[in-house]
Amino acid sequence: MTRAATLAEIAREAGVSTPTVSKVLNGRADVAPATRERVEELLHQYGYQRRRSNSAPSSPLLELVFHELESAWAMEVIRGVENVVREEGLSVVLSESSGRLSLGQSWMDGVLARRPTGVVLVLSGLDRAQQAQLTSRDIPFVVMDPAGDPGQEVPAVGATNWNGGLAATRHLLELGHRRIGVIAGPRRMMCSVARIDGYRAALETAGVPFDPALVRAGDFHHDTGYRVGLELLRLKDRPTAVFTGNDLQALGLYEAARELGLRIPEDLSVVGFDDLPLARWVGPPLTTVRQPLTEMAEVATRMVIDLARGNPPSALRVDLATTLVERSSTAPPPAAAGG
Amino acid sequence: MTRAATLAEIAREAGVSTPTVSKVLNGRADVAPATRERVEELLHQYGYQRRRSNSAPSSPLLELVFHELESAWAMEVIRGVENVVREEGLSVVLSESSGRLSLGQSWMDGVLARRPTGVVLVLSGLDRAQQAQLTSRDIPFVVMDPAGDPGQEVPAVGATNWNGGLAATRHLLELGHRRIGVIAGPRRMMCSVARIDGYRAALETAGVPFDPALVRAGDFHHDTGYRVGLELLRLKDRPTAVFTGNDLQALGLYEAARELGLRIPEDLSVVGFDDLPLARWVGPPLTTVRQPLTEMAEVATRMVIDLARGNPPSALRVDLATTLVERSSTAPPPAAAGG
Repeated sequence: MTRAATLAEIAREAGVSTPTVSKVLNGRADVAPATRERVEELLHQYGYQRRRSNSAPSSPLLELVFHELESAWAMEVIRGVENVVREEGLSVVLSESSGRLSLGQSWMDGVLARRPTGVVLVLSGLDRAQQAQLTSRDIPFVVMDPAGDPGQEVPAVGATNWNGGLAATRHLLELGHRRIGVIAGPRRMMCSVARIDGYRAALETAGVPFDPALVRAGDFHHDTGYRVGLELLRLKDRPTAVFTGNDLQALGLYEAARELGLRIPEDLSVVGFDDLPLARWVGPPLTTVRQPLTEMAEVATRMVIDLARGNPPSALRVDLATTLVERSSTAPPPAAAGG
Repeated sequence: MTRAATLAEIAREAGVSTPTVSKVLNGRADVAPATRERVEELLHQYGYQRRRSNSAPSSPLLELVFHELESAWAMEVIRGVENVVREEGLSVVLSESSGRLSLGQSWMDGVLARRPTGVVLVLSGLDRAQQAQLTSRDIPFVVMDPAGDPGQEVPAVGATNWNGGLAATRHLLELGHRRIGVIAGPRRMMCSVARIDGYRAALETAGVPFDPALVRAGDFHHDTGYRVGLELLRLKDRPTAVFTGNDLQALGLYEAARELGLRIPEDLSVVGFDDLPLARWVGPPLTTVRQPLTEMAEVATRMVIDLARGNPPSALRVDLATTLVERSSTAPPPAAAGG
């Protein structure tokens, strides 16, 4: 049997009828789990790929899957996807993996039954078996802002997180700060790891020693910014500036600073990451690293539509530029601490 | 011909074949516009209603349509819808009417072709013809936070906006404010009209004269809160407190106050509406009227699913309670102005 196995060959090998293999391909529920598993394994093993011409046309739906639907962050992404699908006459099916970084079988069954034009995954991942399931049905997928390492052959759109961490930290160093704290994102998220590496690189090139006590893990939520912010600001030799990993953690740190009677930026400088609309609105307006979330979503959506049309992207991995946006939350360190 | 006209009778009356009427019912594109219009009119005229048992089953999709997908407001609603559909094994198709309060034919064609379980409209409306199109296909719909007046027979979920406006204004009156400004929402939105009526009622029952110069129209966006806020704060006899219609306009007003060197709450008290997460995060944390957006979305979604199962709701119109949340943006007026 060659890689270009037919449905009939897969059916024979699995000991089932050809219509049963078709049912598995179409995500129908009326197949016994053990049978489905055996068929999926053979589809994967033989690299079966349905050609679009051999199957019912895909529906004018685009699947958009979030790690979590929680903040204004997700709204920026949804807006980008809507900008593109509107032009293309597609509709968006919105799903949430509920904080888990991978998706369950019930989601996959729904996708296979809906035959969408493509799938955009935001901070979510697919395991190898799930990738194979989509590939065998010729449903393209693109990962936006991959959480883990999606594999070299998976199309992905991200931002230059390392550069952003570098720019944020250099800005603080240039203002004269030497004790610069960090509230990081989750360790398992590559975007967060890259930002912190950028921070370290900026310190190193400036000859400022790295102090692990100033770097704390967070989870990108406001409450953690507040809690970890209090820890950092209560240190005996507290930082004069903090790079907060994202904007929501910056707002949590604002709250911690207010509670301790520290003024921003006179007593404490703060740099966020994302540049959500609220970064302009808070007091003082937040200096932050802008990542172009709406544009990233637009690029990811166009990429998946191109793939559905049989046009592979010129580059499988695209990172859009981040830029430092200076507002009013950063200033030189207080004279006493800035030595 | 009775109201219970059959497809064959409608086809005869329209001078087309029965399959053509079926195509119109299923939102198929391959019907001439003039034919479609004639068939739609007859379906409406004879009150045709497809029984679920006579047609292909509806798909496990729920349509969620926003007036605009712009802020954290929409995210609160999406979260509520997702909470319910997850339990029910449905997926959400997300659409935006792009700022228009009604939806176009291409949206309707998509919905008719998808045969969703139901439609939840947020701050969007359907005209009579569109309502008839959904009704004739037995696709139930519920309006959340109706913008206009959706009609008595349309199921709708809202909040007690009038009570919220009353509570916000009473809170300011009790603190001693007499010159209380308003940045309203759009005049065509009933939720905004009700809030301002609540404001007027509070003034009246307290014997404080209504000053039209203090009430300005807005559009629920941050930038308008800033611009109209500057107008109000530059009045010769400026208000000592402002009820801002929603939270985003409150943040715009915060910015205007910062620019004019006015401190909140010492020089100016501010009350918002919505209680978005960011209301807790800004400095000072915003006193606001909480409307339970996530719960409203949950109720609307459950209602539409119940309707799809043939269980009409016990009440067609449900308004959930609003509550004043006191934080740090309100205080007694400055002594000089508070007389």
